[in-house]
Amino acid sequence: MADTATADKNMTPPDTMRAWVLGDPQELTLKEKPVPVPGKAEVLVRIDAVAICATDLEILSYGTPALIEGGPPFNKNFTPGHEYMGTVAALGPGVDEFEIGDRVTVEIHAGCGQCKRCRMGMYTSCHNYGLNYGDKDKGHRANGFTTNGGFAEYAVNNVNTLIRVPDHMSDEEATLVVTAGTSMYGLTELGGLVAGESVVVIGPGPIGLLAVAVAKALGASPVILVGTRESRNEIGRQLGADYVINAREEDVVARVKELTGKGADYVVDCAGTETTVNQSVHMTNRGGRICLAAFPKSAVSFDLGALAVNNIYLYGIRGEGRSATHRAMAFMAEKRFDASLVHTHTFALEELPTALKYAKERIDDAIKVVVSTRPDAPNGAKK
Amino acid sequence: MADTATADKNMTPPDTMRAWVLGDPQELTLKEKPVPVPGKAEVLVRIDAVAICATDLEILSYGTPALIEGGPPFNKNFTPGHEYMGTVAALGPGVDEFEIGDRVTVEIHAGCGQCKRCRMGMYTSCHNYGLNYGDKDKGHRANGFTTNGGFAEYAVNNVNTLIRVPDHMSDEEATLVVTAGTSMYGLTELGGLVAGESVVVIGPGPIGLLAVAVAKALGASPVILVGTRESRNEIGRQLGADYVINAREEDVVARVKELTGKGADYVVDCAGTETTVNQSVHMTNRGGRICLAAFPKSAVSFDLGALAVNNIYLYGIRGEGRSATHRAMAFMAEKRFDASLVHTHTFALEELPTALKYAKERIDDAIKVVVSTRPDAPNGAKK
Amino acid sequence: MADTATADKNMTPPDTMRAWVLGDPQELTLKEKPVPVPGKAEVLVRIDAVAICATDLEILSYGTPALIEGGPPFNKNFTPGHEYMGTVAALGPGVDEFEIGDRVTVEIHAGCGQCKRCRMGMYTSCHNYGLNYGDKDKGHRANGFTTNGGFAEYAVNNVNTLIRVPDHMSDEEATLVVTAGTSMYGLTELGGLVAGESVVVIGPGPIGLLAVAVAKALGASPVILVGTRESRNEIGRQLGADYVINAREEDVVARVKELTGKGADYVVDCAGTETTVNQSVHMTNRGGRICLAAFPKSAVSFDLGALAVNNIYLYGIRGEGRSATHRAMAFMAEKRFDASLVHTHTFALEELPTALKYAKERIDDAIKVVVSTRPDAPNGAKK
Amino acid sequence: MADTATADKNMTPPDTMRAWVLGDPQELTLKEKPVPVPGKAEVLVRIDAVAICATDLEILSYGTPALIEGGPPFNKNFTPGHEYMGTVAALGPGVDEFEIGDRVTVEIHAGCGQCKRCRMGMYTSCHNYGLNYGDKDKGHRANGFTTNGGFAEYAVNNVNTLIRVPDHMSDEEATLVVTAGTSMYGLTELGGLVAGESVVVIGPGPIGLLAVAVAKALGASPVILVGTRESRNEIGRQLGADYVINAREEDVVARVKELTGKGADYVVDCAGTETTVNQSVHMTNRGGRICLAAFPKSAVSFDLGALAVNNIYLYGIRGEGRSATHRAMAFMAEKRFDASLVHTHTFALEELPTALKYAKERIDDAIKVVVSTRPDAPNGAKK
Repeated sequence: MADTATADKNMTPPDTMRAWVLGDPQELTLKEKPVPVPGKAEVLVRIDAVAICATDLEILSYGTPALIEGGPPFNKNFTPGHEYMGTVAALGPGVDEFEIGDRVTVEIHAGCGQCKRCRMGMYTSCHNYGLNYGDKDKGHRANGFTTNGGFAEYAVNNVNTLIRVPDHMSDEEATLVVTAGTSMYGLTELGGLVAGESVVVIGPGPIGLLAVAVAKALGASPVILVGTRESRNEIGRQLGADYVINAREEDVVARVKELTGKGADYVVDCAGTETTVNQSVHMTNRGGRICLAAFPKSAVSFDLGALAVNNIYLYGIRGEGRSATHRAMAFMAEKRFDASLVHTHTFALEELPTALKYAKERIDDAIKVVVSTRPDAPNGAKK
Repeated sequence: MADTATADKNMTPPDTMRAWVLGDPQELTLKEKPVPVPGKAEVLVRIDAVAICATDLEILSYGTPALIEGGPPFNKNFTPGHEYMGTVAALGPGVDEFEIGDRVTVEIHAGCGQCKRCRMGMYTSCHNYGLNYGDKDKGHRANGFTTNGGFAEYAVNNVNTLIRVPDHMSDEEATLVVTAGTSMYGLTELGGLVAGESVVVIGPGPIGLLAVAVAKALGASPVILVGTRESRNEIGRQLGADYVINAREEDVVARVKELTGKGADYVVDCAGTETTVNQSVHMTNRGGRICLAAFPKSAVSFDLGALAVNNIYLYGIRGEGRSATHRAMAFMAEKRFDASLVHTHTFALEELPTALKYAKERIDDAIKVVVSTRPDAPNGAKK
Repeated sequence: MADTATADKNMTPPDTMRAWVLGDPQELTLKEKPVPVPGKAEVLVRIDAVAICATDLEILSYGTPALIEGGPPFNKNFTPGHEYMGTVAALGPGVDEFEIGDRVTVEIHAGCGQCKRCRMGMYTSCHNYGLNYGDKDKGHRANGFTTNGGFAEYAVNNVNTLIRVPDHMSDEEATLVVTAGTSMYGLTELGGLVAGESVVVIGPGPIGLLAVAVAKALGASPVILVGTRESRNEIGRQLGADYVINAREEDVVARVKELTGKGADYVVDCAGTETTVNQSVHMTNRGGRICLAAFPKSAVSFDLGALAVNNIYLYGIRGEGRSATHRAMAFMAEKRFDASLVHTHTFALEELPTALKYAKERIDDAIKVVVSTRPDAPNGAKK
Repeated sequence: MADTATADKNMTPPDTMRAWVLGDPQELTLKEKPVPVPGKAEVLVRIDAVAICATDLEILSYGTPALIEGGPPFNKNFTPGHEYMGTVAALGPGVDEFEIGDRVTVEIHAGCGQCKRCRMGMYTSCHNYGLNYGDKDKGHRANGFTTNGGFAEYAVNNVNTLIRVPDHMSDEEATLVVTAGTSMYGLTELGGLVAGESVVVIGPGPIGLLAVAVAKALGASPVILVGTRESRNEIGRQLGADYVINAREEDVVARVKELTGKGADYVVDCAGTETTVNQSVHMTNRGGRICLAAFPKSAVSFDLGALAVNNIYLYGIRGEGRSATHRAMAFMAEKRFDASLVHTHTFALEELPTALKYAKERIDDAIKVVVSTRPDAPNGAKK
């Protein structure tokens, strides 16, 4: 449960903190680092919990994707981790949007506010992505991607990235707002008006499962989940999937057409393999739309002709833009769906390597693995 | 010039007409057919000129793309041809939107008006596409695709497909409204607000060249054309391209980045090859958008990862939706660009096979080849 | 409960039916009329229940609002009533979207499909509104406004106006889809992305109460209802209002600002008086939006300056456009809110005058009064 | 002409400058003030020319409209003036978007970047409007409204507000980008796709006249201007009005309906009187849209019923949002219209009081009066 009881309006942050630091690829060390000091429009967050995302695993091995300039991640004293929540511990100058002691969770991106995309409200597509170092600092920040993140006891955050957490919500559930917000962003970009429309979600990973939940909360009908692992498909059913297609046993495209008549109105591909991206196009009806929320690492054979002939639009999304995390939190706060169904394990901060191993190898059917700084955090499966 | 002088409020259509009819693939015969009779919300158009589109060449060989049901095209007394204009010759019951003698040009699609896409205004993505035969008639019509088209002396048209032609516009120029309308539709779907934004057009075919013209008319800057044939690139310059990249001589992606800084805001791919679709993704900046107005016939190797990481949206378009032909005509009527620069040859109706050959083989640098029913139509290059 | 048990694939409609017919203003007579025959794209609906809307009361006294041409309503054998539901009893030629025996409810408008608004998907703003008579027939239909409606045993409907009713939904609840759909349309036009945003609804009539329900279903937070009658305010609370402001006891604008900080993001004015339209502007924050779902009958003193200075947009809506009824039904079918809370009374068809009196005079706290053709329909308050 | 010849990469700003300062209402004094120093994301602009806007006249008398907090304007050493252009004279830390010597013109607003409206790209509707003083500084800036403006030799500007000026454009024309940008913003919010649609502009002031020009550049047809002064109506014709209605001589609504058939698709009201706002509603067709770009100072009698019955949307706009100035400049740079037609007089900086008098009293048919710091600036009518 939330540790609001310990919220303290006078919580004074220490000078140093424990933080995991990335050396060479895959090399993480727990170190003492200075606690950062919030600047204008920033707050210091005492981190209470942080979830592990598949992208964290990528960053540890390959660095930050699509980084424009040098800077982190390897051997630069960089702390990864982006799906964190905690308690406001200090305020930068002029900040009155939050108070010390407020429970908050964070989205990843604060745009530079000056490029053409930020001026359009597309802060996750900031043209100054990664430019937050030294004399090239344009103010862009991506927690745990380009600036220090949440595998630590404290982190500084732009107020733009903060979302209030209701009292009744657990730390672990609150870490899931970026995941749910990514699903919400995808459905927003697809047009948002999905009530009564057919939505197919491919891939029951965390984003896919919460895409099922968000689509259902928005009134989509039917919501069809395509997966292979029965244990995950079952969670999809609990989160609101009207139908589940086992991709190992059924002809996915044929089954979607059978269920929908003319094909799906919207498809959210959270698997992003050569197979699924082509299934996505072939199962979408004329004038329908596809969100690509996962993607193959290299070029794949793709049927662009079917996409053009059928006037299909394809939205490649990056993260959680257009304040979608706020909309996701609005539904989570009202308990329209139980995001915590995708949370399976919690470990203490010092057990991060074990937590990463569980997440990567899906040990014990792990889906979302959370690292907690609470003294009473369990080390293992959710109770 | 327009033959408005001959417009006659009492022009009585004959009982029969000459019409080209499709037998086996590639087999066209000029026959006598009954002049069709317009129904409710329809008019009879006396065809004055019809342009040849690359899709016509496809239909003659392979039939109508993406046709849901049986019906035409082969050996069903079907008349192809969809880029036509002419004079209103008779009105169906209740029609008062047009008068006999009005000069009109046509867009291809009239949707069924009942499916979910038509109800959204997306009539070119009609879910009853091709359902206009006998007891399955849902009212969808696509001139020269699923219903009889314009390689004939007369054709019936839903009033939805008609656009008025100003007196000063030549028949040949008026046939280009579907081409310009397709370019306009693409730019509309990309968001429409292209003034001051960078637009790259790949492929100087008719749609590409008019995409340059439409983008420039909408204020795009810079407009960059990518092509290989210098003769066509030159027309692109005349239609407003600020820069032309010769794809045979330059690194297209590098050059676009050099010209735009962070990459293009919008790309309209009118070539649709494996090379160009990947160039499109790689030259588009973060948060930018691509319109796929041409496409490879089979699956190609495509870098979906770059698309997703950069939050790029890809719009596969079909034809000329959202009344884009009307917007294109508004610019053409004001002479904002000279669409007739892409018109190169005119032949008489009975010379259709020759006209098709010129279009297909690009004889004499043919771009748009028009067939005319005017007695004084030239047989060959535009004068 | 639904009478699906009696659904009969071979239900043959009789030749004549009972129907209320409008003579002079306020003069309704129950007559025998021929059962209408469905044409192309139409079905015959056996009416099972029809709700009374405030607009029905207007039409009986003043005729159809904003009618372009002559035609109904007075002394033209016109049958009013537009919020009806029932069972498909016969199919017009070519209709395969529905089967005889299907339970359906209806929205009011089928656009002409040809004017510029219909081509944009704005069928409730059809430019041929009211043109459905004789040789001026453009195909526009507005049930019970310009064409015969639902205070009868049968009515013909364009397939565009039909929405399927789930088995578990009562006839009475199904009649409320136009009301909920109007609320949904308003929220759609305001942008649709209301999750986590503040929404104020003024006026707890049927549209206002269901606007509370729809806003809450879409995730709005807080949802604030402004009303005067405590009995209706209480229903608002049951439908999801987070706060209720009693307009007789509190300074409405001050209270909204207290609850929201900078003012409301969205306001839906379902009262439409001089007082409420100005309150709407004054309680909306900079860049916020107002939907005017009710309106004063004559010009009122209105603070347009505050609207312009604060960049506020005002959406005057007419009915239930953009397929909003389908989205409303999607939420109702999933029981996201209980629309039947606004239904208070049911009477038999022959008791229509009593039903109208209850609705008009709010006898016995009547909100939505329904007329039913079921033999077992109660005559009075909902049980 | 542009003084680019004197652009100097090493132009070092002096320590002090001349600046007009507002004391009591209407009391302006030319003083020496320190030249401001640009901060992060800011540049120092040497002001070359500044136009007078009707809002300047308002501010001098009544202060800044809708200011949330205290702060300027009266007796606080405040320098008004917001329609200025000039030359980049110094760069704040980290700025590489511009170079010293660049010619630039400015838009008014830089949003805080943190409120919900700024996050949506609606920076002119910033919820921290006016909060840019001392410890309440949220970073919002509105040149000459809440921060020091352009009736001076230098001003500091956020890079967000800068737009490059092409070499061939005169200083005076470049000052008009906010005016043209406001017109462009209005047409953008109305939907942007005005090509071939009817647009009525009421009121041939600077915004109205440039609304005619922008609408025409965007392809609107017909563009109808409603005015009373023939001298200004004539400029409207030169800027592209297809028809001009003299409001003193004709029934404006009747004439618009005669010209358009069903009424106007879009209306931009730049007069904002009780008469014109009601004309706007009555001349707009079903489903049409109105932009309120001027407004009455107090509440007026307004026909909201006609607005709701006809599903009309009303957009009250504030200034020049959504980067509309950039789109306006794109058209101006291509000479699609000659904005300088609305510029009538230029005075030297020290003659500001005279310039204001000309603007206010419309002396010598003054429309846009510009104040210039150029030594060779004329004192009086444009040559």
